[in-house]
Amino acid sequence: MSERNRERWKQCCRATAKRLPVLTWLPKYSLQWLQLDFMAGLTVGMTVVPQALAYAVVAGLPVQYGLYSSFMGCFIYCFLGTSKDITLGPTAIMSLLVSSYAFDDPDLAVLLAFLSGCIQLAMGLLHLGFILDFISYPVIKGFTSAAAVTIGFNQVKTLLGLQHIPKQFILQVYYTFCRISETRAGDAILGVCCLIVLMVLQQMKKSIPRTHLMETLPVRISRYIIWTTATARNALVVLLAGLVAYSFQMTGSQPFSLTGTIPQGLPLFQPPPFSIITPNQTIDFKEMVQDIGPGLAVVPLMGLLETVAIAKAFASQNNYQIDANQELLAMGFTNLLGSFVSSYPVTGSFGRTAVNAQSGVCTPAGGLITGALVLLSLAYLTSLFYYIPKAALAAVIICAVAPMFDARIFRTLWQVKRLDLVPLCVTFFVCFWEVQYGIIAGVMVSGIFLLYPLARPRIKVVRDKAIVIKPENGLQFPAIDFLQDTVHKQALSEPQQYNVILDCSHISNIDYTVVLGLSELLQEFQLQELCLIFIGLQAHVLEVFQAADLKGFRNFSTLNDAEKSLGELHVATEDMLDDNSSILTTTGIIQ
Amino acid sequence: MSERNRERWKQCCRATAKRLPVLTWLPKYSLQWLQLDFMAGLTVGMTVVPQALAYAVVAGLPVQYGLYSSFMGCFIYCFLGTSKDITLGPTAIMSLLVSSYAFDDPDLAVLLAFLSGCIQLAMGLLHLGFILDFISYPVIKGFTSAAAVTIGFNQVKTLLGLQHIPKQFILQVYYTFCRISETRAGDAILGVCCLIVLMVLQQMKKSIPRTHLMETLPVRISRYIIWTTATARNALVVLLAGLVAYSFQMTGSQPFSLTGTIPQGLPLFQPPPFSIITPNQTIDFKEMVQDIGPGLAVVPLMGLLETVAIAKAFASQNNYQIDANQELLAMGFTNLLGSFVSSYPVTGSFGRTAVNAQSGVCTPAGGLITGALVLLSLAYLTSLFYYIPKAALAAVIICAVAPMFDARIFRTLWQVKRLDLVPLCVTFFVCFWEVQYGIIAGVMVSGIFLLYPLARPRIKVVRDKAIVIKPENGLQFPAIDFLQDTVHKQALSEPQQYNVILDCSHISNIDYTVVLGLSELLQEFQLQELCLIFIGLQAHVLEVFQAADLKGFRNFSTLNDAEKSLGELHVATEDMLDDNSSILTTTGIIQ
Repeated sequence: MSERNRERWKQCCRATAKRLPVLTWLPKYSLQWLQLDFMAGLTVGMTVVPQALAYAVVAGLPVQYGLYSSFMGCFIYCFLGTSKDITLGPTAIMSLLVSSYAFDDPDLAVLLAFLSGCIQLAMGLLHLGFILDFISYPVIKGFTSAAAVTIGFNQVKTLLGLQHIPKQFILQVYYTFCRISETRAGDAILGVCCLIVLMVLQQMKKSIPRTHLMETLPVRISRYIIWTTATARNALVVLLAGLVAYSFQMTGSQPFSLTGTIPQGLPLFQPPPFSIITPNQTIDFKEMVQDIGPGLAVVPLMGLLETVAIAKAFASQNNYQIDANQELLAMGFTNLLGSFVSSYPVTGSFGRTAVNAQSGVCTPAGGLITGALVLLSLAYLTSLFYYIPKAALAAVIICAVAPMFDARIFRTLWQVKRLDLVPLCVTFFVCFWEVQYGIIAGVMVSGIFLLYPLARPRIKVVRDKAIVIKPENGLQFPAIDFLQDTVHKQALSEPQQYNVILDCSHISNIDYTVVLGLSELLQEFQLQELCLIFIGLQAHVLEVFQAADLKGFRNFSTLNDAEKSLGELHVATEDMLDDNSSILTTTGIIQ
Repeated sequence: MSERNRERWKQCCRATAKRLPVLTWLPKYSLQWLQLDFMAGLTVGMTVVPQALAYAVVAGLPVQYGLYSSFMGCFIYCFLGTSKDITLGPTAIMSLLVSSYAFDDPDLAVLLAFLSGCIQLAMGLLHLGFILDFISYPVIKGFTSAAAVTIGFNQVKTLLGLQHIPKQFILQVYYTFCRISETRAGDAILGVCCLIVLMVLQQMKKSIPRTHLMETLPVRISRYIIWTTATARNALVVLLAGLVAYSFQMTGSQPFSLTGTIPQGLPLFQPPPFSIITPNQTIDFKEMVQDIGPGLAVVPLMGLLETVAIAKAFASQNNYQIDANQELLAMGFTNLLGSFVSSYPVTGSFGRTAVNAQSGVCTPAGGLITGALVLLSLAYLTSLFYYIPKAALAAVIICAVAPMFDARIFRTLWQVKRLDLVPLCVTFFVCFWEVQYGIIAGVMVSGIFLLYPLARPRIKVVRDKAIVIKPENGLQFPAIDFLQDTVHKQALSEPQQYNVILDCSHISNIDYTVVLGLSELLQEFQLQELCLIFIGLQAHVLEVFQAADLKGFRNFSTLNDAEKSLGELHVATEDMLDDNSSILTTTGIIQ
């Protein structure tokens, strides 16, 4: 093999490894890693199964769809992911979004997963990840806090066993309080008990101190048992609640609302539904896409946002780098292939990623174990899920979303930067009306904060021999009207009119609208027999002016030169006035 | 009257005069002004009557609606307008927009005028005129050029007497050429003759030299006749074509398509239609608004844009100032009250404003004469309009829109600023598909050009003792990811890691997302036992940092101080390393 071929081969390998990150860690894989990955995978699996059942309810779909959505991400991310911690799967926020766009129709939800996957793949290939940069932190916080309230409150009715509550948040709050007297005692007692147990275990987990090497074995084992119990708390609570419900069923009475029958077995591998055939009518692909509507933009983007935000948080915490575009590809493939096994759109889950990281996962291989556990549950455990009380699942969701509501951010922003409270509050409150409007309103408000200074830039005015006007942060087309007004006010509208020196040293880029506006100003100054002189032009800005060939355009490098020339001009003008001829054509300085 | 009351009275007068500009010129009104205003008003009237008939056809409405729309603007602008030259009325572009949103339904068009008026008034009261700053010159040029082509080609079928041609531009071009053989000889010959006469008169007007005082009276009179003929060319051509058609009618044959019967008399003064009752169904207000759809944004905004652009052009040419918000109010009132006399949306007309200015108008009072002329035509001449050949009106429109197409702008932008060709071409070509999409696409493309530098700002990196990183054009939230990546690449990812000094002297404003991103960076530097030091913070930026209370935040005013502190730290670190203790807690410089 020649030197050149070898070089090519190396490049090719590097490119492949970038697109298939599994190739970078698989050769180094060790038995110790396997052990840790296995334990982490198992722990995450114990969390994902009850959460998947619960989130499917949030999404308005039959519970088995939660499990259908939980395994594809584990397998795909293992090959394509760049972060060891991330786990893809159903999440609270994504389920909320799916419920607003798929209208409780599994076919629409699966098609949405397929289309989201396509869009995310396209964005990844076109390197469009930078769009996320325009979603500011207050908007994200406003959205997640509102989502936590919406999702959490949505579960209160299930926790209390209330029925026929509308979906819209504000109506939901109203009717939940109206019908509070219809609370079913069994559901309410079980739900509150589950909630308390979950909260206690959550607190216990937070307060476990780190293991030290000097401790005795029994101490370490008991700590490990507490840690495992606390980490697998969701699975334990759901299991216990199920056992209680089963016992009641055996005695013949049933005080709880149960999950009910779930179809047994793995989902079929089949293309997502591109049309829905009902006895009455056929809904074709175009109509389905129209039904989903803005979801086609919101779901892929929020999915991407959630994954990247989580990946960044853990990469920074555990000190490694992630590749946002590669994450986009991994998620795109997961949604695309997921839709072939009836998955609804998935994304990175903050809660399970944290569990994964704390369990000491070493590589994305942990996901294989998680995925296998989900598949096993689907194959053998679905008949047992019949007995899971709905109130227990509601408690699991409430505990999962509670930490997402961050009340402190309001205080922090009040202290640090009050203006940022505006996008936060706009997003937060509009999200209660409709999620996508909240995000759009927030992004637009922060967009206005970005754009307004472009239209009303800071302009420094110094009155010397002439008036020196200096835009301080560049000059782009939205600002040209404002500059013209400023020049008019300062130099042309007063009883006495002045020459103007325009200091362009902070202008690094200029567009044609600005050139045109300046040429209008030049004309007006000539009409008044005054001078408008440019100084401090950067080379490529000067090129643009020269190409435009403005009448009466003059430039100097420094303020001194400009003022000197104005002085000369002044003397020349006084001479000329005796001759009664135009100074502009005679002095010959005009280009 | 006390001194204080007098002061209040003066302020009140000034405020009233600002809102009713008629008060500023009426007291000074003279007989000479009246003479000039009368002539100008008459000349504009001779132009507006044939144009109004023609533009109504462009808007897809019965021809009388053109005249209904032509007089309210004249009266209202006389009281509320700030420019002496502007004439409000139906225009080619507005008619094109109305035809896309009102679907040839006069009721929808009148309602659109009412709603546009309300929106424009609201914008004027809220001082939202600055929105126009975000429409760049290339977008305006692309739109007007595409509109000229669309409107002009739209008339070719009328000029040739072709029938059953679809409305969509691309299909129109296709079918016009397909059916070229069906051309009606009479229409085609008349149309081309009118076109030639109009073009010749237009050229003649351009080439008339200015009058000199020394010329003899006969020369001046003949020049005045030519000027009047050329200025009133539209009225003359339509009149002559009408006479020819009338003569043919008298002989019993009619080779031309005629305008046909027009209802006689003035329009009723009645509220705009808030619902449409047809024999089959009733369309209520909500459905009508839904039908108009995006027109509610596009029509008021483009109307405003056209008026302000024209007002600015003539204000700058004739050396006076206009008040954009007052123009907005004048136009809003015109559309609002116009809808009570069955007007469709109107705006400033470039062609007629130019005629007005050239006729030497002195005050907006000229509009009263124009308005009166339109009312007289409606009252007494409508029966004569029956004989106006459609081909003659088509020729009037083609000549009116031809100057709007500006082919040179493509060459100019190529020479001056090639990047600006992108919004121009996007707007130009997408406008052929649908006008509003063209404008939106153009505004979005120029918006991306504005926003991209905010997300990828120029960052200067200098490698000295430490790495000095300096964002050159401010730092806002879309840029924080990019800054983090830059710092990672420069200082943290190489085999050897460096301290970083962040020079913030160009940062004049900071938001919470940026603060958070910087605090993440600070954490990472502390994890690596490196320093991230800030220099050149402006006072209010420093306040934000202090309020955020970042861990490990240190700032110095100059680079020298920062480097000196790093030097001391370096010495300290080397000392410390022997003690094996953490430098960060010991040196005590950390806040």
